[in-house]
Amino acid sequence: MEAVFGGVFGRGDVAVGDMAWLQAMLDAEAGLARALERAGLVPAGAGQTVTAAASAANFDPATFGIELTGNPVPGLARALARQVPAAVAGAVHRGATSQDIIDTAMMLLARQVISATLADLAQAAEAAAGLAVRHRGTIMIGRTLLQQAVPVTFGLVAAGWLTALDEARGGLASVRATRLAVQFGGAAGTLASLGADGPRVAALMAEELGLALPVLPWHTDRLRILDISTSLARASAVLGKIARDITLLAQNEIGELREGDPGGPPGEIRRGGSSAMPHKRNPVAAVAMLGCTRQVPGLLATLAASAEHEQQRAAGAWHAEWEPYTALLRLTQSAATWGAELLPGLVVDTPRMAANLAATEGLPLAEHVTALISGVLGAPRAHDLVARASERAASSGLLLRDVLLGLPELADTLAAAGITPEQVEAALEPAGYLGATQVFIDAALAAHGGSGHG
Amino acid sequence: MEAVFGGVFGRGDVAVGDMAWLQAMLDAEAGLARALERAGLVPAGAGQTVTAAASAANFDPATFGIELTGNPVPGLARALARQVPAAVAGAVHRGATSQDIIDTAMMLLARQVISATLADLAQAAEAAAGLAVRHRGTIMIGRTLLQQAVPVTFGLVAAGWLTALDEARGGLASVRATRLAVQFGGAAGTLASLGADGPRVAALMAEELGLALPVLPWHTDRLRILDISTSLARASAVLGKIARDITLLAQNEIGELREGDPGGPPGEIRRGGSSAMPHKRNPVAAVAMLGCTRQVPGLLATLAASAEHEQQRAAGAWHAEWEPYTALLRLTQSAATWGAELLPGLVVDTPRMAANLAATEGLPLAEHVTALISGVLGAPRAHDLVARASERAASSGLLLRDVLLGLPELADTLAAAGITPEQVEAALEPAGYLGATQVFIDAALAAHGGSGHG
Amino acid sequence: MEAVFGGVFGRGDVAVGDMAWLQAMLDAEAGLARALERAGLVPAGAGQTVTAAASAANFDPATFGIELTGNPVPGLARALARQVPAAVAGAVHRGATSQDIIDTAMMLLARQVISATLADLAQAAEAAAGLAVRHRGTIMIGRTLLQQAVPVTFGLVAAGWLTALDEARGGLASVRATRLAVQFGGAAGTLASLGADGPRVAALMAEELGLALPVLPWHTDRLRILDISTSLARASAVLGKIARDITLLAQNEIGELREGDPGGPPGEIRRGGSSAMPHKRNPVAAVAMLGCTRQVPGLLATLAASAEHEQQRAAGAWHAEWEPYTALLRLTQSAATWGAELLPGLVVDTPRMAANLAATEGLPLAEHVTALISGVLGAPRAHDLVARASERAASSGLLLRDVLLGLPELADTLAAAGITPEQVEAALEPAGYLGATQVFIDAALAAHGGSGHG
Amino acid sequence: MEAVFGGVFGRGDVAVGDMAWLQAMLDAEAGLARALERAGLVPAGAGQTVTAAASAANFDPATFGIELTGNPVPGLARALARQVPAAVAGAVHRGATSQDIIDTAMMLLARQVISATLADLAQAAEAAAGLAVRHRGTIMIGRTLLQQAVPVTFGLVAAGWLTALDEARGGLASVRATRLAVQFGGAAGTLASLGADGPRVAALMAEELGLALPVLPWHTDRLRILDISTSLARASAVLGKIARDITLLAQNEIGELREGDPGGPPGEIRRGGSSAMPHKRNPVAAVAMLGCTRQVPGLLATLAASAEHEQQRAAGAWHAEWEPYTALLRLTQSAATWGAELLPGLVVDTPRMAANLAATEGLPLAEHVTALISGVLGAPRAHDLVARASERAASSGLLLRDVLLGLPELADTLAAAGITPEQVEAALEPAGYLGATQVFIDAALAAHGGSGHG
Repeated sequence: MEAVFGGVFGRGDVAVGDMAWLQAMLDAEAGLARALERAGLVPAGAGQTVTAAASAANFDPATFGIELTGNPVPGLARALARQVPAAVAGAVHRGATSQDIIDTAMMLLARQVISATLADLAQAAEAAAGLAVRHRGTIMIGRTLLQQAVPVTFGLVAAGWLTALDEARGGLASVRATRLAVQFGGAAGTLASLGADGPRVAALMAEELGLALPVLPWHTDRLRILDISTSLARASAVLGKIARDITLLAQNEIGELREGDPGGPPGEIRRGGSSAMPHKRNPVAAVAMLGCTRQVPGLLATLAASAEHEQQRAAGAWHAEWEPYTALLRLTQSAATWGAELLPGLVVDTPRMAANLAATEGLPLAEHVTALISGVLGAPRAHDLVARASERAASSGLLLRDVLLGLPELADTLAAAGITPEQVEAALEPAGYLGATQVFIDAALAAHGGSGHG
Repeated sequence: MEAVFGGVFGRGDVAVGDMAWLQAMLDAEAGLARALERAGLVPAGAGQTVTAAASAANFDPATFGIELTGNPVPGLARALARQVPAAVAGAVHRGATSQDIIDTAMMLLARQVISATLADLAQAAEAAAGLAVRHRGTIMIGRTLLQQAVPVTFGLVAAGWLTALDEARGGLASVRATRLAVQFGGAAGTLASLGADGPRVAALMAEELGLALPVLPWHTDRLRILDISTSLARASAVLGKIARDITLLAQNEIGELREGDPGGPPGEIRRGGSSAMPHKRNPVAAVAMLGCTRQVPGLLATLAASAEHEQQRAAGAWHAEWEPYTALLRLTQSAATWGAELLPGLVVDTPRMAANLAATEGLPLAEHVTALISGVLGAPRAHDLVARASERAASSGLLLRDVLLGLPELADTLAAAGITPEQVEAALEPAGYLGATQVFIDAALAAHGGSGHG
Repeated sequence: MEAVFGGVFGRGDVAVGDMAWLQAMLDAEAGLARALERAGLVPAGAGQTVTAAASAANFDPATFGIELTGNPVPGLARALARQVPAAVAGAVHRGATSQDIIDTAMMLLARQVISATLADLAQAAEAAAGLAVRHRGTIMIGRTLLQQAVPVTFGLVAAGWLTALDEARGGLASVRATRLAVQFGGAAGTLASLGADGPRVAALMAEELGLALPVLPWHTDRLRILDISTSLARASAVLGKIARDITLLAQNEIGELREGDPGGPPGEIRRGGSSAMPHKRNPVAAVAMLGCTRQVPGLLATLAASAEHEQQRAAGAWHAEWEPYTALLRLTQSAATWGAELLPGLVVDTPRMAANLAATEGLPLAEHVTALISGVLGAPRAHDLVARASERAASSGLLLRDVLLGLPELADTLAAAGITPEQVEAALEPAGYLGATQVFIDAALAAHGGSGHG
Repeated sequence: MEAVFGGVFGRGDVAVGDMAWLQAMLDAEAGLARALERAGLVPAGAGQTVTAAASAANFDPATFGIELTGNPVPGLARALARQVPAAVAGAVHRGATSQDIIDTAMMLLARQVISATLADLAQAAEAAAGLAVRHRGTIMIGRTLLQQAVPVTFGLVAAGWLTALDEARGGLASVRATRLAVQFGGAAGTLASLGADGPRVAALMAEELGLALPVLPWHTDRLRILDISTSLARASAVLGKIARDITLLAQNEIGELREGDPGGPPGEIRRGGSSAMPHKRNPVAAVAMLGCTRQVPGLLATLAASAEHEQQRAAGAWHAEWEPYTALLRLTQSAATWGAELLPGLVVDTPRMAANLAATEGLPLAEHVTALISGVLGAPRAHDLVARASERAASSGLLLRDVLLGLPELADTLAAAGITPEQVEAALEPAGYLGATQVFIDAALAAHGGSGHG
């Protein structure tokens, strides 16, 4: 799977697979050994010796006997102990239970992936900010329920992406800063085998690994796992929304956006190309993002359900976390990497935006005209008049302007009310019906700048 | 459903049903009318007039024609406009789109339910803190993978519940304080129909409703919905873990915990009673909690999937939020109410805890004895010796103590190593093998006290 | 919720709420009483007396004390017993456990809803078949990854809907015919309190209720619940796909489909109308369908997770089934009702289909032209030549035909290869590149006719 | 992941990873090439040549450029074409689209995994049948809501497992027999590039691959994927229930079941052993099964949500299927393999079953005694009397028998009613209160034998 589909689901700087897991577990063991040494419980140098041995390349999981113990740690710990001198072997895994190592490894993996994902999201956010600035005045039709509604600008759309990306970044950064904690509780969360030394070793281990020290071991309090997972799911949700917008706006009949070509050696198949259909230009990045993000809700459900851990260690719920958690890390990172590549290269077709807006024949401004007329004729009559005109425009293919000003009975009514054709035309001008668009774009840019992210 | 199953899934102070939804939507409309008045856009008094009319009892959703519009707001707004004088009718729903009202109502509902849930969780946490204090020295066997492991105290178990409850409370309080924001963007998020007045009206509306003002309308940025949902799912996860522990510890063969009787008029069926089986005492509260909490992960998945909102308003994904969001509010609140009732009345059977521990024949202390012997004989020989003794104890039903000290070859080995029977007996004493238990309990109580929650 | 959102999520002939649940449970109790009478275990007439009393209108769930027992059956059974003469009271709930009644009620509810849903799906399938027939030759552009691909006919699209609807119907019919079984096992699945009479009573109860008799009670074998749920989820999946296609093809810029107006009294708001935007015609039915169907996967996950029933009755997993199961019945039925209304009235805009196809400038036929040229020049040169021509056509806005025949270097190459302009033009004719379209439409119609569903 | 956790989640005869996917896609391409040859569309021998080249070992997915095309097929097809003589290259992938190959590969993978899973489930079912036979009279206490209820036999418990396993097998076998269909539709489901030859090639391709021929291409009708997935989820649900029962019955305090030791070289760590806690015997197989099965509901939700495929090929929903589908195959197979190993070796501790039942002090028979007394005193008085006696027994630790016959006021009431001590003692005999247990066991065994599975 990693090779066959990795180009879609496994992009990103951190490869979240066997090696990363092995190394993270070994890092946890090494951190523990160094902590034991600093606590004076194992011989001087033991921490360094274990750390030196704790390189994933030295280990073969096939030898761990996981089918005997139900998790890889007992085998890993034995193998690690065999890699160091006998005098040091006692420093390996001392005081720990398998869950201490796996849970701590989950934290270390999260830190790497969140950091890589934050870098990608920062790139995507910068690109969105750039689009918001450059296209703050690029008018396009807003669409609700997949139907044309009223005008917006593409800058506002990009500002919406930007704010959401910044919110996603905030969540990930906050989780990285506050929720990644060492796990160290021993067999049942009492650190009994270390006697009175347990808490000190735990604190040193946290320090060695750069993780927070929790109030008490969190073997069966899975909120940290849930917090990491939801911070990833938030990022995934934002990326999925952006990708969805792009696939929709890239439809041939709409054509307002398309993915840029990331380049590559000539003669090769191009991004989004199709061998069978030479004209096709698939929005590969956006589709790949959706392929990633749409797997996330189900994985999140599994992790939320797994929080029902029994007693001092769960029989199954804990094990059921490992794969969906890894997938969540991998998929969110991959979606973010796609997004970091897609947004900066996004091609905006402003003429198509203008053309699609023009093709609406003025109908999206009907609301504006109604407001103009309401002031004179009252809301009910205004609404009726404009509704009739809109219906006529839609059925005849005429512009709403031409109906309003061209049909004698309507034109007369407007004239009698003292509404001039110039007023009607002004009301039908999309640029005059953008409300707070600029204010909102400025607010999104200011929040971006001020978030410490900008 | 609300009547037939409400006693399980719909407990709690806030009834999250039709009336609550109606009132929340009306409150949103009324807040908007007051904001419009304060902005000088509608006649003085209009806000108050609309607010007075906006009482759920005055409205019948059956008349809203939701099957024509796909959501209840257009019908509700028309009905509300009909309830006020014509001069004020123009203040109803002005500038708003349906989603503004529904999304704002979702925030108002969340505030009510989160507040009620926080009160329940505070009660549960107080009870857990009390248990941690009272049972800090009540030794019981810790269980991992549903198997007896090493000793803990029930106070530590309760401290673990406490910390998790406090974390859940922290999340809910934080979401209530920072993530409940007014929604007000008009047809496509530009507030176009209010011209330059939009942002001011939005700010006043937020003020009127006691909600935050977002950077820009969040019609298609669903992270707020997701944040509320995950804060509820966190609470649900913690409650589910506690309920699960209680059902397991209440099994007849274990019998360490049982639910208290909340009382009720005599002659009636008792909580947990069974008409067919008069001896039965079902852990009804814990089971009901699990009935609630186990619905949450699937609902969370639906809400996470719905975050992929298209363009300026989603065609389906928005609608798909209403029911699971409501269910999530209702179920979490119900679980919390059950928990607030269950924990203070929880009956702890300390003799059974002692008896179950005694029945382990000392085996859970094997780890401790091994440590003692390792110091003299080295780890491998110590492990072998104790493993053989444990096996013998388990197969014969003898106490580990009796095997270690009674079997000549073992006793001789120990004696030769200078290990006295007194040392062996001390190592087999559960109270001597509790490690950091007291430190952890203190830490949990301190965090509880210092969290502003205690 | 049922009133406020019922017009979207609760349509359909069977109202799946409190009353339906009450009546289904009462029907189960009544069926048991009649079975007991036929088995000679209760006085003659008892079955009829209980049946007469077992009308939902006579019962108030608020009196059931569900918060004491964790489910409504004990209270319901006591209330039912009070409604009949003392001599008959002993026939009420005899031999049964609460789960017997609730599980049997779930079967009875499923039967009603599946039948109503099948009727709706039959209507939808007939409409799809009609569309397949009428539009078997209506050429439109096929779209993959939301991009124009190669031509299809709308008849083929409708045939795809038809086949999927028929498959969904087959699944529901099969579940109704084979998987709806009585539940009757008593306290722990042994029917102990009926001594040797248990199996006979179970068989008679199945007969009375028109349900199958299972091999043995299925209290903790939840495959029946899962089979019902997945048969509903299948129908929902098919309806969601159709609704999605319709929302996409109804986009203003595509405009190939739109929802018909189901009518209604004049002066009222029209289906899909918007008060603020008089020009808007929202695809309300399709959006409502998606609002229903998108809730289904999460509910299905909850039901699948709940299948892990413990021992002889689950502590929580059973309770967690009731609400999502009911929601699944309700939402699938509602989506089917929307679909049964939408498909017959669907408006197909064949000129827009033709126009959208024409706007492709011939590019979707590039594959066909390549095939033509390959026969003479070999695949690589043919592919290169057409790819270059396609690129030129796309960038210049020229028709592919005009590029191929108008650019001297291309025209010369073709002429030198003996390929005539007529051949090129024929290859560019969409109607000539439909492959097996007609065969597939015929196959779908034949399968529909022969399925016993047509 | 595959190496580090494979011993838990990736057991089973079919390794469902990169190589399996590659080979399945190549098999699909090879089947197409043979079909094209049989249809006379490519040179004689081309099918065999392509088939010979289509060995996974010859291909490196890293070269496929999946990040350019969004799926591995274009790269795979090009690589395959390069492996055969130029004259044959035209037979590779002809008429096909990427989805044809991936979807067909999904069917081929399903066939392998379902077959392996069926073999494992058959072994598990045989073991369950054996347990049902051997333990048909082994009385144990039935447990509902994790509380002791009334007696059952372990044979009945095993019969329940058996019936559920047989139902799961039936579903998998039926899906394998009827729902695995070739996918072959070309770019948009019309097979246009094959002209009139498409349907014939499709039929031959189905024949070559041993798959069914669908009514029409099912590119966007995902019910087959859903049917495979739900058949796997059914098996997973059954295995999870069994594993859950075993973990519960293996708790030390209950001790009625434990996992057998599957053996292994001496000196090694034993299955379920713990290095830290030498006394521990974890139910590793059951826990591993739960670790697998608990991931399934979330994966199923993703696959159900992905059924909303847009138009002629989905933009994201299709891609989102590949990983959860593969995981579902892998995890269900792994759970089944664990189950096939666990059930035959399951150790039943009948003395513990008897002891746990005896410890109930007769209370589970209260229902039976009530029935005896009801016949004479009427139900209400009987129920009261037994309820009082049960309460007394529970609070005093006396046997229910001793209370009923020893307390003067109760004994006198019974004597006055003509109920003898012998009758009371008979009613308190668990073996006399097993109802239809034997009938149900026989029915389960008969259904097993008659299912063609036995």
